Amino acid sequence: MRYAETDQMGIAHHASYVVYLEDARTRMLAERGCPYGSLEERGFGLVLRSIEVRYRASARFDQELVVRTRVERVRGASVALDYELCSVEGGQTLATARTELACVRLAPNGPTPAPLPEDVRKLLEASIGSTGRPA
Amino acid sequence: MRYAETDQMGIAHHASYVVYLEDARTRMLAERGCPYGSLEERGFGLVLRSIEVRYRASARFDQELVVRTRVERVRGASVALDYELCSVEGGQTLATARTELACVRLAPNGPTPAPLPEDVRKLLEASIGSTGRPA
Amino acid sequence: MRYAETDQMGIAHHASYVVYLEDARTRMLAERGCPYGSLEERGFGLVLRSIEVRYRASARFDQELVVRTRVERVRGASVALDYELCSVEGGQTLATARTELACVRLAPNGPTPAPLPEDVRKLLEASIGSTGRPA
Amino acid sequence: MRYAETDQMGIAHHASYVVYLEDARTRMLAERGCPYGSLEERGFGLVLRSIEVRYRASARFDQELVVRTRVERVRGASVALDYELCSVEGGQTLATARTELACVRLAPNGPTPAPLPEDVRKLLEASIGSTGRPA
Repeated sequence: MRYAETDQMGIAHHASYVVYLEDARTRMLAERGCPYGSLEERGFGLVLRSIEVRYRASARFDQELVVRTRVERVRGASVALDYELCSVEGGQTLATARTELACVRLAPNGPTPAPLPEDVRKLLEASIGSTGRPA
Repeated sequence: MRYAETDQMGIAHHASYVVYLEDARTRMLAERGCPYGSLEERGFGLVLRSIEVRYRASARFDQELVVRTRVERVRGASVALDYELCSVEGGQTLATARTELACVRLAPNGPTPAPLPEDVRKLLEASIGSTGRPA
Repeated sequence: MRYAETDQMGIAHHASYVVYLEDARTRMLAERGCPYGSLEERGFGLVLRSIEVRYRASARFDQELVVRTRVERVRGASVALDYELCSVEGGQTLATARTELACVRLAPNGPTPAPLPEDVRKLLEASIGSTGRPA
Repeated sequence: MRYAETDQMGIAHHASYVVYLEDARTRMLAERGCPYGSLEERGFGLVLRSIEVRYRASARFDQELVVRTRVERVRGASVALDYELCSVEGGQTLATARTELACVRLAPNGPTPAPLPEDVRKLLEASIGSTGRPA
C-alpha cells in the first residue's frame, strides 16, 4: 500500500480499495489468458456497471495486501466478480466486494454496449467459482 | 471534472465517483452545521462501512457534475446516505449510490467504533428524507 | 481541498498539488477562450514536459485554496506557465510551481509533437505576464 | 501501471509519476534499513520541499515500470534524491526527477522542521551516489 493512498485518519482511503480491485481483476484476466490491453486493442472494453464494497477493517501504510478474485456469473454481455481483500500478514479480511462489468465497444464518441467476445466469454465461464492466484 | 480523473477510455474513471460522493457528503454535512473538520477536532470521525454505486452513464471531461445527497437512515452509531450524481447540463443521472458510515473515535492506534455525538445524530435525523443543496 | 487528498501526515498529499495545477491551467485556458476540451476536439493536446514545485507550507483539509496562473513564455510548440498556490483565508503562499507544456497531435498510437495552433499561440502570447482570475 | 493511472490521452497521467517516485523512495529507504513506517513510529517524517520531473516519453497501460533512486546529497535536516523512471521492456528512460525532502517532527498541529535522526542521516550518507535495487 502506498503512502499516497493513506488519508488523515491514518488508514488507506476507501477510494483506494476501488483501485486495488481493478488492479486485481486486471491481473486475474491476464493470468487467465485475457490481458485487458489486448482486449482494448481488439476494440473492446469492460466498464463498471456496479460496485459494492463492505469495509471490515482498516488497511494501514506498510501493510501488504492481497486480493482474491472470483468469477461469479457470466452473461452474454456482462460478468460479475467477487473479491476478498486481505492483509498478507495475519490474513485478516479487510474488505469484500462485488463488481458487475459490462462489455463495450470502444468508439471515439464513447463506449457502447456489446456482447462479450466469444473467446473471452468462454474463458470467463471456465473460471466460474475458482479463485485465481491472489493479486 | 478534472482531466486527471479521466482514464484512457475517455471517461471519468469509476474510482473518481467515490471521491465525488465523499466530497458531496462533506459539503452536505457542512451546510447542515456539522463541518467534518470540526467533528475531527472533537475526536470523532465517520468511516465508510459500505458503498454501492450503480453507474448509468459516462461522465466526460469538461462536463459539470452535481451530486444530490439525502440522509436515508440514522442509527445510534451509523448513518446511511443516498446519492444521485447528475450532469448539470441536460440533468442526466450518471450514477446513484448508497453509503453506510459508522461513527468512530479517532485514536493514535486507529479509529474505534463510537456512538454518534448527540448533536450530530439529531442534526442528521432532522435531515432524513430531505435533499440538500446539490454539491 | 478534498479529504481523499489528505495523507496520514494530516496534510494535503504533495501529488494533489500537481492535480490542482492542472485544474488551474485548464480553467485559465478556458477563461481566455481556449477550453482544453475543444483543443482535443481539434486533435491537439498539451502534454507536460517538465514540472517544478516548491512546497512552502502545508495545506490542510477544509482549507480553501486558490491558484494564480501566469503565462511566462510562449514558443512555437510549447508554453511555460508559473503558478502560485495560496490559502484563501490568510493568503499564505503554500507552493509555487512552473510547468513546461508541449503541444502534441493526438493519434491512436499516442501523442506526437506539433506546433501550437496559430490562434492558441496568439492567445497565449497575448496573456504573457498577466495573471488570470484565480482558479 | 494501473488503468486508473491512465488519462484520456491514453497514457499515464503525469501526476501518477509523482506517486511512483514516492513509492520508489519508500522502497529504497526500507531496503537500506530505514522503513518509513518505523520512522513515523519514532515521531519523524520526511516531507517534500521540492520536486522536479522531466517527462521524456509516455508510459502506457500494461507497461511495466522501474524506478532507480539515488541519494544525491545529505544535509543535517534534508536529503536530495535523484530518480530515473524506465520501462522494463526496452529500458527506455521515461522520466528523470529530483526531490528534496526535509525531516520533520510529527505533531498533532502539523509537522515542524527537525534534524534527521543521527542513524538515518548516517545511513543516507553511506548511500550517496549508489543506486539502490530498482523499485
